[in-house]
Amino acid sequence: MAIGRETVENLLKLTKPKWRTSITKVEPNRIITRGYPQEDLIGNISFSEMVYLLLKGEIPHEKQAKMLEAVLVSFCDHGVTPPSTQVARIMASTGAPMNTCVSGGISSFGKYHAGALERSMRILQRIIKEGVNSNGPPSSSSDLKNSALIVVEHFLEKGKKIPGFGHRFHDEDPRPVKLIKTAKKYGCFGIHSELAVSIENLLLEMKGIRMNIDGANAGILSDMGFDWELGTGVFMIGRVPALVSHIKEEKSVENSFRKFVEVEDIYYNGLECRNIDSDRNELNTSK
Amino acid sequence: MAIGRETVENLLKLTKPKWRTSITKVEPNRIITRGYPQEDLIGNISFSEMVYLLLKGEIPHEKQAKMLEAVLVSFCDHGVTPPSTQVARIMASTGAPMNTCVSGGISSFGKYHAGALERSMRILQRIIKEGVNSNGPPSSSSDLKNSALIVVEHFLEKGKKIPGFGHRFHDEDPRPVKLIKTAKKYGCFGIHSELAVSIENLLLEMKGIRMNIDGANAGILSDMGFDWELGTGVFMIGRVPALVSHIKEEKSVENSFRKFVEVEDIYYNGLECRNIDSDRNELNTSK
Amino acid sequence: MAIGRETVENLLKLTKPKWRTSITKVEPNRIITRGYPQEDLIGNISFSEMVYLLLKGEIPHEKQAKMLEAVLVSFCDHGVTPPSTQVARIMASTGAPMNTCVSGGISSFGKYHAGALERSMRILQRIIKEGVNSNGPPSSSSDLKNSALIVVEHFLEKGKKIPGFGHRFHDEDPRPVKLIKTAKKYGCFGIHSELAVSIENLLLEMKGIRMNIDGANAGILSDMGFDWELGTGVFMIGRVPALVSHIKEEKSVENSFRKFVEVEDIYYNGLECRNIDSDRNELNTSK
Amino acid sequence: MAIGRETVENLLKLTKPKWRTSITKVEPNRIITRGYPQEDLIGNISFSEMVYLLLKGEIPHEKQAKMLEAVLVSFCDHGVTPPSTQVARIMASTGAPMNTCVSGGISSFGKYHAGALERSMRILQRIIKEGVNSNGPPSSSSDLKNSALIVVEHFLEKGKKIPGFGHRFHDEDPRPVKLIKTAKKYGCFGIHSELAVSIENLLLEMKGIRMNIDGANAGILSDMGFDWELGTGVFMIGRVPALVSHIKEEKSVENSFRKFVEVEDIYYNGLECRNIDSDRNELNTSK
Repeated sequence: MAIGRETVENLLKLTKPKWRTSITKVEPNRIITRGYPQEDLIGNISFSEMVYLLLKGEIPHEKQAKMLEAVLVSFCDHGVTPPSTQVARIMASTGAPMNTCVSGGISSFGKYHAGALERSMRILQRIIKEGVNSNGPPSSSSDLKNSALIVVEHFLEKGKKIPGFGHRFHDEDPRPVKLIKTAKKYGCFGIHSELAVSIENLLLEMKGIRMNIDGANAGILSDMGFDWELGTGVFMIGRVPALVSHIKEEKSVENSFRKFVEVEDIYYNGLECRNIDSDRNELNTSK
Repeated sequence: MAIGRETVENLLKLTKPKWRTSITKVEPNRIITRGYPQEDLIGNISFSEMVYLLLKGEIPHEKQAKMLEAVLVSFCDHGVTPPSTQVARIMASTGAPMNTCVSGGISSFGKYHAGALERSMRILQRIIKEGVNSNGPPSSSSDLKNSALIVVEHFLEKGKKIPGFGHRFHDEDPRPVKLIKTAKKYGCFGIHSELAVSIENLLLEMKGIRMNIDGANAGILSDMGFDWELGTGVFMIGRVPALVSHIKEEKSVENSFRKFVEVEDIYYNGLECRNIDSDRNELNTSK
Repeated sequence: MAIGRETVENLLKLTKPKWRTSITKVEPNRIITRGYPQEDLIGNISFSEMVYLLLKGEIPHEKQAKMLEAVLVSFCDHGVTPPSTQVARIMASTGAPMNTCVSGGISSFGKYHAGALERSMRILQRIIKEGVNSNGPPSSSSDLKNSALIVVEHFLEKGKKIPGFGHRFHDEDPRPVKLIKTAKKYGCFGIHSELAVSIENLLLEMKGIRMNIDGANAGILSDMGFDWELGTGVFMIGRVPALVSHIKEEKSVENSFRKFVEVEDIYYNGLECRNIDSDRNELNTSK
Repeated sequence: MAIGRETVENLLKLTKPKWRTSITKVEPNRIITRGYPQEDLIGNISFSEMVYLLLKGEIPHEKQAKMLEAVLVSFCDHGVTPPSTQVARIMASTGAPMNTCVSGGISSFGKYHAGALERSMRILQRIIKEGVNSNGPPSSSSDLKNSALIVVEHFLEKGKKIPGFGHRFHDEDPRPVKLIKTAKKYGCFGIHSELAVSIENLLLEMKGIRMNIDGANAGILSDMGFDWELGTGVFMIGRVPALVSHIKEEKSVENSFRKFVEVEDIYYNGLECRNIDSDRNELNTSK
């Protein structure tokens, strides 16, 4: 019995698919994303609805869509103060292509930069899901306040910052205030946001520290059902347009390969002058 | 006369600012983007209006906003067929953080991948601005058709693909059709799009090749006044959400550090077995 | 009293240097690295001596230099099986430039890929420095064996792999054997390597698992005095040449933009066909 | 007739191998690179010989090995003046992992930064292979000088810099001088280097401009038979150790998330204060 090439390939296809996905199906002349033909999405869904559909698999309610717009807008830009923006612009100055510079900006998010949103979401989600002690998840408003107190004391004891609170440039950031107001308007202010506000109240009283943009969005995104592992993802979606804009500005306005640092501005604290031959001789005879 | 530290710093600030920007001003508790306080933008502007504001400095008309939504949605995803998505997922499988994987995906756009939009925009914008020959910019419908013919012949002669036309997976891509329709609805179908359609008509007749998503968006974005240097930028803004979604899927569904390639699937076409000592001896004595 | 611009700049230079380094001093026509004029290093020092000088601030003894050569050579290449190499080649296929592809390969090192060296070094260094329990650092051969036992039991209990032991492709990797032999020859086999060997002996007896290349190099580099935080750095220095070689091969031998994955090889496990309008209506009325 | 799974897989393996390479063969417990078992290379070959073997497929003569050492050493470091090093350190300050920071540094090589070596090699190789005009490749010393003159005049006429000549920090860089001397010592000073020197002689006389490190290495690497497409690759191999060293320094010496730019140092040249609602109204009614 002869077995055709096609049969053989079909057999193997079933047994070892290396690539599978539930996001988009591609067939000749047909592209289905999350169940919807893309030509039905184009012109019929807003970009932030598309973001929601991609990340959560469903189109959002109208109010959720509005809320996500606000969250994404709130991450838009912080001028040239963030290291990521500095990196993107320094790279742009070397003549690197647009996508390389955006990639460099995005790579620059580290433990101390842009990581607070995700860490804040994780803390809020864990407390709401598991509670902070053996009593289980908070089930009343006083439980919630108590949880907030335990969290605040835990961090203060360790001398650590609570992710989502305090900002190195702003002590009264106007963005979280507006975000919270918007969340209340669109029915997206839930138990996670309430917990964040409780933490803020304590911190404000004890240390004069307020919620920052990450703390506000951590509460709101958690209340919208976003897994904390998507925190940095959502932030990046909101920030990429500004990176593109900064790179364009650098490339069109500034001189190529300009010096960001002058030789005179560098302080050298190393050795001045050694002799390689004598050092090497001494090293190998001394042994 | 004593000069205070502040005076000195102010003096220098004026003479050598290394960093300047017209995008966002950051002051304590005050963040102004393109002239608008960010708290006025949050909850008051859609995400694609924000994109427009960042890239072009102004908020768009309602119809332009709708059009940009459609353009961004159209770039959403193409499953796991694009190299960039494969790269993002392979990186995700190694346990690399979300932002690193997105960055890897974005770095993967090269000459042959995702570059067509920008090249297509450049061609359309140059022809509309300068014309294809000494007659200057096209000033009539027949001029436009003539320009299209010259472009098509130029590329066919060289045996090259025209950026924005033809697709390796689709011969009748449903997305450009919907985009063109949407552009007409929102008054964003102008002379650049017309030129793109003229090129498509010729290519379809001569070679059976249709416009692809990059060709359609190249015309539309050009008609909306986007500089071609922003092409890849706009594409990336539209594609990042899918990268985030694929990375999340890889991390949550697949095994860590899975083998994308089995040893048995690799064909080795190099040398089998040599002896380093004898090779080295022969090499150094032969000389 | 007039203060000149130069005075002012000098004043500020002393008070706020943003950039300082002890590695290299740059002056017009003079470049001093780790105390040596670069023209004295060129032609007078091997590349691995240079690596040592950069990372540790001193030129190495002859035997240390030989050992570092062996370590760097041992990291050279593992064909196209590592995700990092796959990423570099997929990126190369898109026409991305050489440096972008190397960068992509390097970004691909995550928790599960190329992280074992650093984690293994950290474990060995911590045990040798602090011991595994209240008895303090191991001070005899039997202490060392006892420490090894505690480590092995700790990991086995948790069902976790010990970094530096076991390999997904090799159960008897020929590289660590040769590295250990070389370390003994060059006097670089010390207490950290001994600990690694003790762990291997136990693991081999209990689970049939051997030391891998990371375990061997973790012991050796630690015995040479390299801080564990430099582990991935040393690995990358050794691996970059192969990345360059693979990217060159991909670019010169394979077709541009070739399909690494065929549409037929992708398994789609998402939704098939939904209607956006009816879904949206249902969604917003149901709420 | 039954066909076993193995037969089927073998059949397909032969017909569609997606991955092939001539660099390294990986089998269980056996790793062959360029024909040599890796355990034969470890401890038996220097790191720069390994680099040569990976890039060119053969082990080098002793003198070539020495020359490549010198070339790689010459690329070692340029303090914190290069954008790539600034990027790597800014990224390190955010807490990004070592490999991410190295990757960022490497991504930063653009048209104006680190591209000169490759461009210089391409120019030299093209002239030696094809000549500069219809007379064909230069076949005498006076041909060579004539070619040099044509190149110099071509660039000067266009007002462009010749890649490999001139340096923004050094007018008499000590490195190329030492490299040329070393090349002569090791028999690696050939026709490409001679051409580079001829260009330098002309430029020095006409404009007071000398060869830089890229020009010297372009000649030498070309005389050693390295394809110009490997230029940036060789440079990166030489520079990665310094990036690792700078990142380690930043992480251990400086404060995390320090401000590289103070708000007071940023000059904002954008709009000050607009009203979103009135702007939007005006915009949509005016249309």
